[in-house]
Amino acid sequence: MSTPLPLGSTIGILGGGQLGRMLSVAASRLGYKTHIFEPGANPPAGQVADQVTTAAYEDEAALLAFADAVDVITYEFENIPTSALDTLEAHRPIRPGREALRVSQDRITEKEFLSDLGLTVAPFAAVQTKEELDAALDTIGTPSILKTRRFGYDGKGQARLNSQADAPAALADMAGSPSVLEGFVNFSHEVSVIAARGITGEVACFDPGENVHVGGILRTTTIPANLPGSMRMDAVLMASKILNALDYVGVMGVELFVTKDGLVVNEIAPRVHNSGHWTQNGCAVDQFEQHIRAVVGLSLGDGKRHSDVVMENLIGDDMDKVPALLSEPHVAVHLYGKAEAKAGRKMGHVNRVTPNA
Amino acid sequence: MSTPLPLGSTIGILGGGQLGRMLSVAASRLGYKTHIFEPGANPPAGQVADQVTTAAYEDEAALLAFADAVDVITYEFENIPTSALDTLEAHRPIRPGREALRVSQDRITEKEFLSDLGLTVAPFAAVQTKEELDAALDTIGTPSILKTRRFGYDGKGQARLNSQADAPAALADMAGSPSVLEGFVNFSHEVSVIAARGITGEVACFDPGENVHVGGILRTTTIPANLPGSMRMDAVLMASKILNALDYVGVMGVELFVTKDGLVVNEIAPRVHNSGHWTQNGCAVDQFEQHIRAVVGLSLGDGKRHSDVVMENLIGDDMDKVPALLSEPHVAVHLYGKAEAKAGRKMGHVNRVTPNA
Repeated sequence: MSTPLPLGSTIGILGGGQLGRMLSVAASRLGYKTHIFEPGANPPAGQVADQVTTAAYEDEAALLAFADAVDVITYEFENIPTSALDTLEAHRPIRPGREALRVSQDRITEKEFLSDLGLTVAPFAAVQTKEELDAALDTIGTPSILKTRRFGYDGKGQARLNSQADAPAALADMAGSPSVLEGFVNFSHEVSVIAARGITGEVACFDPGENVHVGGILRTTTIPANLPGSMRMDAVLMASKILNALDYVGVMGVELFVTKDGLVVNEIAPRVHNSGHWTQNGCAVDQFEQHIRAVVGLSLGDGKRHSDVVMENLIGDDMDKVPALLSEPHVAVHLYGKAEAKAGRKMGHVNRVTPNA
Repeated sequence: MSTPLPLGSTIGILGGGQLGRMLSVAASRLGYKTHIFEPGANPPAGQVADQVTTAAYEDEAALLAFADAVDVITYEFENIPTSALDTLEAHRPIRPGREALRVSQDRITEKEFLSDLGLTVAPFAAVQTKEELDAALDTIGTPSILKTRRFGYDGKGQARLNSQADAPAALADMAGSPSVLEGFVNFSHEVSVIAARGITGEVACFDPGENVHVGGILRTTTIPANLPGSMRMDAVLMASKILNALDYVGVMGVELFVTKDGLVVNEIAPRVHNSGHWTQNGCAVDQFEQHIRAVVGLSLGDGKRHSDVVMENLIGDDMDKVPALLSEPHVAVHLYGKAEAKAGRKMGHVNRVTPNA
């Protein structure tokens, strides 16, 4: 049994976007301070953090000063350069740990890890050249999706192949990046489990939510998900298996396809996850607080849901809907403090709560 | 119809305690930044604010720089020196406005204001000398309470008189401050209404909560309150009357005694209120967000309750209960980031939520 960080300790957060912002707020609720490390100026998270460092991930001196100023380090995104992690880890614990980052930073490594655990994933093959793509298509066929192995998010770095004829264009889209061809999974819908694992190995999962994506970007998450009880149990057991195998500390998002033959793991994200934003208004302990609890070594909350919720992302021009949303009953509006509402940019979200009977 | 402050604007908050802290968090949810002005070093609100000014209310230069850096000014407590308000108001709007502060800063002015509105208050008389106290006791009798006219909070600056014999000691407690003798109200329980009024005059009230005080400090608030429907309506109408009379903009706490003859106004607080903390986990829009909405000129949320809640304050040594509370289902823990758990000091609160059926 380890001792939690004392109240008033400082949590360092790599990345200053909306996830870091909401992590900061959750940390404040538990009496902790946060320090954001972010290369971009004026990060959204900085507005609610105790300290902000604006520096590149290559700035060794800034990394060392940051490590020195905090008691533990976590992150809001998984694509942090390895060199920065090496520097930081020599001075402060990083939670979740390096193994989770190593696995989730590369789609092939991730799928092999999941397969080795006995979990079902889409058929896949590593691809970089035209010859490799042709060979992969022979096995996997179409429809299928070519994705970069690293640094993809929100549908970026992906090309769909509906027939062999789409191969050259898809490969050109990858611009020479190591890629993976994924076979199409015939799923009825996608769900995700937001799972947390504490420093002593306890696991707590929020209820699975049902996700709808548009153009590769999450649009809505609905709780409870349309899922038979047995699959609900499977989803939670699968998530627990993943977290335990990684000796994971923190919150992870696990995306699952629902098929007639069972659940297929789409991908994992070693951080708080957009599909877990509903917990802010549906649970006494939300995903952000759960993550902070794990990272500082507190016991996890039980994650029980007190209300049903539909979460909807506000993307780009959706900001025009905010005035109307502010007046809608039982709607909680969460904005991210971003200056410009560019197309495809996540600007905020709303949680529609179903009231007590 | 006035235009709301644009997203990204900065709200200046006078006072950096837990109320300022939770106001900052609510402002962030709506995409606004906050700037705290607080004489004490390292204020709890500073940990989640964009900017902090540490300066005395007598520091004219600091007040001017603060006013210059913000777009609107609000406050977390009512006892701000008049000279500071004069300086600030010449440069930026202060919401709620000066009239609310003038009325609520003096118990006699407040009671006269409420009486003039036709609302019932406890019998009262201004007292400073032994002769005035004797005369007041002749009319009001005992049990009664002697209170300082100004600067009282959490039961401080109050002395109970159970008989005429307690008069000298009670007067000594006031240490020469202008005071008020309040007659005892034979009430069954206390409720409070957290009411908000927007910049266009709309009023929205949260459901009345039932308060239990111990030693002059709020201990619990339970929602819904034990209150017949007609009194529930009265409570909301009384609160609306008060806010309209003051041309009020923001959230106000209105404490009411429940008696067999109806509701008696105990006191009003021109700010977010401890008895409104339950809204954080019982409503999609909480009292802090409602206050921010009013202050920046947005429309109010409807304040509907989605769940029943019991709020309990964590005072001094109650902090020892936190580890157990963190594991309790449907309990939301809110800590204030204060360094030391002194006796009688509000360190945090918990909201126990009743789940959906």
